[in-house]
Amino acid sequence: MARVVLGMLGLGTVGSGVVELLAKHRHVTLKKIAVKDINKVRTTEFSCPLTTNVNDIIDDPEIEVLVEVMGGENPTLSYLEQAIKKRKHIVTANKEVLAKHGPHLFALAKEHGVTIFFEASVAGGVPLLSTIHKGLEANEISSIVGILNGTTNFILSSMEAGKSYEEALAEAQALGFAEADPTADVDGFDVAYKLSVLSALAHRHFVKPETIYREGIRTITKEDMALAKEFGYRIKLLGTAGKRDEKGKEIFDVRVHPTLVPLEHPLASVSGSNNGILVKGHAVGELTLIGPGAGKLPTASAVVGDLMNLAGALKLPDFASYFQPVIEASPASATPPDEWKCPFYLRLVVNDTPGVIGKLGTIFGANDVSIATIIQRDAQDKEATIVILTHDVLGRNMNQAIEELKKSDFLKTFGNAFRIFRSA
Amino acid sequence: MARVVLGMLGLGTVGSGVVELLAKHRHVTLKKIAVKDINKVRTTEFSCPLTTNVNDIIDDPEIEVLVEVMGGENPTLSYLEQAIKKRKHIVTANKEVLAKHGPHLFALAKEHGVTIFFEASVAGGVPLLSTIHKGLEANEISSIVGILNGTTNFILSSMEAGKSYEEALAEAQALGFAEADPTADVDGFDVAYKLSVLSALAHRHFVKPETIYREGIRTITKEDMALAKEFGYRIKLLGTAGKRDEKGKEIFDVRVHPTLVPLEHPLASVSGSNNGILVKGHAVGELTLIGPGAGKLPTASAVVGDLMNLAGALKLPDFASYFQPVIEASPASATPPDEWKCPFYLRLVVNDTPGVIGKLGTIFGANDVSIATIIQRDAQDKEATIVILTHDVLGRNMNQAIEELKKSDFLKTFGNAFRIFRSA
Repeated sequence: MARVVLGMLGLGTVGSGVVELLAKHRHVTLKKIAVKDINKVRTTEFSCPLTTNVNDIIDDPEIEVLVEVMGGENPTLSYLEQAIKKRKHIVTANKEVLAKHGPHLFALAKEHGVTIFFEASVAGGVPLLSTIHKGLEANEISSIVGILNGTTNFILSSMEAGKSYEEALAEAQALGFAEADPTADVDGFDVAYKLSVLSALAHRHFVKPETIYREGIRTITKEDMALAKEFGYRIKLLGTAGKRDEKGKEIFDVRVHPTLVPLEHPLASVSGSNNGILVKGHAVGELTLIGPGAGKLPTASAVVGDLMNLAGALKLPDFASYFQPVIEASPASATPPDEWKCPFYLRLVVNDTPGVIGKLGTIFGANDVSIATIIQRDAQDKEATIVILTHDVLGRNMNQAIEELKKSDFLKTFGNAFRIFRSA
Repeated sequence: MARVVLGMLGLGTVGSGVVELLAKHRHVTLKKIAVKDINKVRTTEFSCPLTTNVNDIIDDPEIEVLVEVMGGENPTLSYLEQAIKKRKHIVTANKEVLAKHGPHLFALAKEHGVTIFFEASVAGGVPLLSTIHKGLEANEISSIVGILNGTTNFILSSMEAGKSYEEALAEAQALGFAEADPTADVDGFDVAYKLSVLSALAHRHFVKPETIYREGIRTITKEDMALAKEFGYRIKLLGTAGKRDEKGKEIFDVRVHPTLVPLEHPLASVSGSNNGILVKGHAVGELTLIGPGAGKLPTASAVVGDLMNLAGALKLPDFASYFQPVIEASPASATPPDEWKCPFYLRLVVNDTPGVIGKLGTIFGANDVSIATIIQRDAQDKEATIVILTHDVLGRNMNQAIEELKKSDFLKTFGNAFRIFRSA
């Protein structure tokens, strides 16, 4: 396959980037692009015909590879199925369809003797999949932890600079980083899809995205950001895809939630809309990759990299045999949040009366929550902000202590509780 | 080549790691290891015979791949040549022999139909070569900037924590991170070798290591580290392998020197003996990789990764055709340091008399050195420390200003002048 003929579904941001990068490659020919609206004004120059009929591409026997950059679950899934059945290789940037239908699609591809490449589906331009599949081939990967969503990282970076969540979100929307409905990003769905794909690569099982524990960033305040910084941390939305053995049982620890990361840790240096991913391998130790998680040319760089590797490969990777059955993250096959042990950050507003710290200490002590640091701030109008960093705590004990705090007579407002990152 | 028979030269730290990782791989057989001293007590378990005669490996027709982890230029070079002539593939961790003899060795390998793999030669466990060669295949790389020497980074991290250079070096030596003669590390030779190999990968030309501009870390004081931090920087030994067009001429900007990196930059988060590398590609933008730059299992992870990619490849990479003729870094094909433009950090000790700041300003102004920040500290015993951060300055102008400062009547001690990192 020295010269490759392509068809493409979608000509949005990423699709335009692919057209731009392919202009330099003579061994790849883009023959047709399927779009929703053929009359839309487009700024990208392209020399191949557009069509609104996907079958113009799927039924064209000359087209060997389908580049799918339209996104979404439906009707994309059925287009991919049809293309695979016509024995076309797939290069896709679509984490949602892979997370929800990966096992089915890879099995179908194997049945029809074609391969699905998907570097662009996770972490945009960061070549995470080739790093795990090629660069770290000698390693057993125990976990992948990272900042996998550029939109929320941009919002959190803005909040660190003093904006409120609402202001930061509005700014991200104005700049085109966030959708009008930001749910997929700010509530962690996008990260959950990516974690499912990363689990498949690192641990050979896709994880059902709806079983992944998920907390978003809506409740984080700029006050939390400032207090975290004062204690030497940044709050990041971290996704984790971990696997470990516990008493001979495989535990898949897959989750996304806000986490305090120490300022000097490489993941804390991931700013703006960048992504950052820490991969732990038994031989390499910890490897961190930081780069653009989205955007026109970075994501197109991943798509075109796949195309070049596809064009240059005499032996295509057999992902279908590599991936094992889909699993659930929690609670059937993973520890529930109640069983996680980690330090916590808590922010409370209390009545500023004598003995409050003592009462707090009593509640925490009774629930095996050991306090590492406690400070009282901004006492005024008979109320005070209290920030607490704990030592390692079982999730169940932390929740129990928080329940009792909420029932206490001295609590005015329960601010937030976030987990603190620990490089185990 | 589904099952591979290996011979190995060297059984030091990295060699022991390779033995350990290979124990799990049934498709790779390690047949013989050549060592200097066969009677040395070894803690690694290995089941294959040792020999002190390298020809036992080179002349064994069953051995298809030679793993070279003995290091150094001679006699290693001649062993590699002999093995290549016997049509053995090479997997090497040896940056020095590649930097000095890369073009010759790759040409010889091509002539004899074999390939040289060298992931472990740069940045230890960080899969930098596979990232550039595979993951970023769609990119033109304009520059690679990084912390490429774990020993000096360990020393600088210790100095940041308050140790003097001598104390930090002694600590690194006691821990086995630094050699008894630390010249190769602290004077930047090791980084220069790595930059030569990285230039070959990114820009397709090996760069003669002796033509690479080189400043080491011996002159850095813990006072410099503390002052840099106060201004929001960390001092790192950065290597740069850049390429750009200037008036239709290709400029190869290859150099290693201490550089102030902003605290919030990912490269500033590279601590202890880690390496960190920033790759700039025209499509991906900036990608940073951080991980262990040396050590037993991390480096072995790169060697064994190469072996697995070699064993799995139906089509081996043709590096000999990829690499173009060796070039010189400076001054014939690169800008000399006089022509570099960047901001500078300066530390001076002056006589604490009225008008000193005015005199300083006059000297700087006369040489087109524009001051961004100036502070005076620790005035006592009629002397004061002055720290200056400049705007962009031509190297020639900075040197001229420093010469005039040294001749002035108010300078007591010239402290240091370091370049400040700019992500251009």
